[in-house]
Amino acid sequence: MTADPAWFADRARLEDGNWLFATYVFETEREPREAAADLCREQSTAQWARPGVTEDFRPRHGAKVVALRTLRSSPAPLHPSPFDGPGPFATAEVVVALPAGNFGANFGMLLTTLLGEGTFFTPGIATIRLTDLQVPDAYANRFPGPQFGVEGLRASFGVKARPFLFGVVKPNVGLDPASFAALAEAAWRGGLDACKDDEQLADAVWSPLAERARLCGEARRRAEAETGEKKIYVSNITDEIARLRPHHDAALAGGANTLMLNALPLGLPAARYVREWARVPLLAHFDMVASVSRAPGFGVESAVLTLLQRMAGFDIILFPGLGARMRSTEAEVRANIEACRRPLGTLRAALPVPGGSSVPGDLAGIRALVGGPDFGAVAGRAVFGHARGAAAGAAELRAAADAVAGQACAF
Amino acid sequence: MTADPAWFADRARLEDGNWLFATYVFETEREPREAAADLCREQSTAQWARPGVTEDFRPRHGAKVVALRTLRSSPAPLHPSPFDGPGPFATAEVVVALPAGNFGANFGMLLTTLLGEGTFFTPGIATIRLTDLQVPDAYANRFPGPQFGVEGLRASFGVKARPFLFGVVKPNVGLDPASFAALAEAAWRGGLDACKDDEQLADAVWSPLAERARLCGEARRRAEAETGEKKIYVSNITDEIARLRPHHDAALAGGANTLMLNALPLGLPAARYVREWARVPLLAHFDMVASVSRAPGFGVESAVLTLLQRMAGFDIILFPGLGARMRSTEAEVRANIEACRRPLGTLRAALPVPGGSSVPGDLAGIRALVGGPDFGAVAGRAVFGHARGAAAGAAELRAAADAVAGQACAF
Repeated sequence: MTADPAWFADRARLEDGNWLFATYVFETEREPREAAADLCREQSTAQWARPGVTEDFRPRHGAKVVALRTLRSSPAPLHPSPFDGPGPFATAEVVVALPAGNFGANFGMLLTTLLGEGTFFTPGIATIRLTDLQVPDAYANRFPGPQFGVEGLRASFGVKARPFLFGVVKPNVGLDPASFAALAEAAWRGGLDACKDDEQLADAVWSPLAERARLCGEARRRAEAETGEKKIYVSNITDEIARLRPHHDAALAGGANTLMLNALPLGLPAARYVREWARVPLLAHFDMVASVSRAPGFGVESAVLTLLQRMAGFDIILFPGLGARMRSTEAEVRANIEACRRPLGTLRAALPVPGGSSVPGDLAGIRALVGGPDFGAVAGRAVFGHARGAAAGAAELRAAADAVAGQACAF
Repeated sequence: MTADPAWFADRARLEDGNWLFATYVFETEREPREAAADLCREQSTAQWARPGVTEDFRPRHGAKVVALRTLRSSPAPLHPSPFDGPGPFATAEVVVALPAGNFGANFGMLLTTLLGEGTFFTPGIATIRLTDLQVPDAYANRFPGPQFGVEGLRASFGVKARPFLFGVVKPNVGLDPASFAALAEAAWRGGLDACKDDEQLADAVWSPLAERARLCGEARRRAEAETGEKKIYVSNITDEIARLRPHHDAALAGGANTLMLNALPLGLPAARYVREWARVPLLAHFDMVASVSRAPGFGVESAVLTLLQRMAGFDIILFPGLGARMRSTEAEVRANIEACRRPLGTLRAALPVPGGSSVPGDLAGIRALVGGPDFGAVAGRAVFGHARGAAAGAAELRAAADAVAGQACAF
């Protein structure tokens, strides 16, 4: 059996703005060329003609293999399963061209194509990972992208030529709104740009979102008056759909000037929905990203999810950063940074924030990786667990940020 | 170092309706008891007091270990990573009690707790899987659950004591609405209960949702008149949030009487949002489920996602079924069936549909697994790729369903 040529094409012929290019690495006991052809079939027009009718939907609607290489062969599979045959197992990298007309410019159907039944249930492909997604400008431009972007954030908040400093107010869960606002105020006065809710804190019984935003707004204005700097309060409005807009309104009325969404738990369509009417920058937290990205060879690269979050309209994107706790390689962090800023139609760049409880000593390393000061750092206990108080912790972080701002720009 | 007793509790003390019980299996190089305590800390109040303040948020807000057992120890990790130490690696199963007050009855914050940063970035836990979730009745009752449920589906559509038969109209992508409706009509006349859109077909340029629904509605009424049976057209309304309600209205106006959502690509909050105003049953497709559930030891059991989809309000839930292509064990399929029907507050049971291109010969096996006729089967090419046409394919499937309906009920 040889692979049907209808599932193969020259990439050059498909560079007309109507095709996305998705790179997958997969493992199979089959001939990789045949398995790749079946992957295309399952990701598009699985049955391309009615019985007895002379028709073929593949030229227009079929996904196409535009590149394929076998990376290695192994006698054992990466993830053994009761459904395995005797092997050997070939690992191949394929670039699949996906016709945008099949799914349109909406996240529900795009994700269904990229990570749906077709992708994970192609015969003979047990282990598969989406490693890259290239989106043509014409397609990207059908998504909103960041409303402010890095330049807009710098203009709005007056943070010049140094990293943005975020702090997650701690204790993260259980603290009353007045105590929360007092800690935030101390951290702003000490030198933080932004105080944010933890990803596990949104509208809670013991800390209603509206009341916390009101008290943080008052504290923010006092800190701004004292420091002469603009300060940022990031309110986490993650909730059911019908409550997102009331939370937006209450948070802004109180004094929040950036909003946070736990992007994957909420869903990318919900994030894009908020972007349609949000009047302030949006920040994405990376909950659930590891659940689909960290198993070796399986799921999706976190950088692809970062790219999609940028398309949805996030101005600030957190992703797992460097260090043993975050278990992310430098290559993964770099790929996420690039997903925030690489050319993407007319969409603005998002501010990359390698997350995971930064301490002042981390900033120089992140700056080197980014090649400049266009990033954010998030501290938790380094500020709010500091033995001499949040202001002292914030001041140490700010000194580190000012120090890296002074370095010559590497790009 | 010994684990802090503040992170441990008797489960009996927490059976007051305010705690969820999440079972995780994790691998660690640390002492499992210490790692489990840190998991609880990261999933709740990571810093439980302000420096210098005598307070402790753990009694009320801390997650708690209520059961822990070590399953095995291995010199090598399940998924090797550059961040591993020398080993050995213990695999442990922990039941964590999660305080519902921390996150409330909303999917965004619930998923953040279950599968967020805390879960996947606990120090020393590289590999972790959510294997079960027990929800107290008081918490479950804050979610809508199915509007119709199995009994409501049988009453609405008059399908008695046999499985529901679904067919995915094929060619799935590329077919014009009139041809689509003609195929659906043939399948309904042959004996299918329901014709549904493919998960890769929603509102498409070549097949606008409204026009397809209108033509399928006309075809459905003709088939109903001829057969004397109620027939079902399932329209896939997956799209951005702002378009869900217009799609609902257009699909119903045209003649759809069940709506499909690609649940995870859309997001559970969006599914619950549709449930708030949908006037017909909702069907969930399992796109993306494999991406978080199929890597061994990692992510989440598909049955937990099925339970959450039932809480969100789906009446009909597809999940990967039996067979080599679907790569699901019998235990996984059973767990999904139970998630559809096990007691869950006052929430109705959902109809379980083990997916993956069923053929007539599959029905007896599914019936045996379910222990009765309360399930659905989905055929694709067995009906629409049938050499003698869709009516003949549907008739064969219907004969198989009628045959299993005749068997004595096993429960």
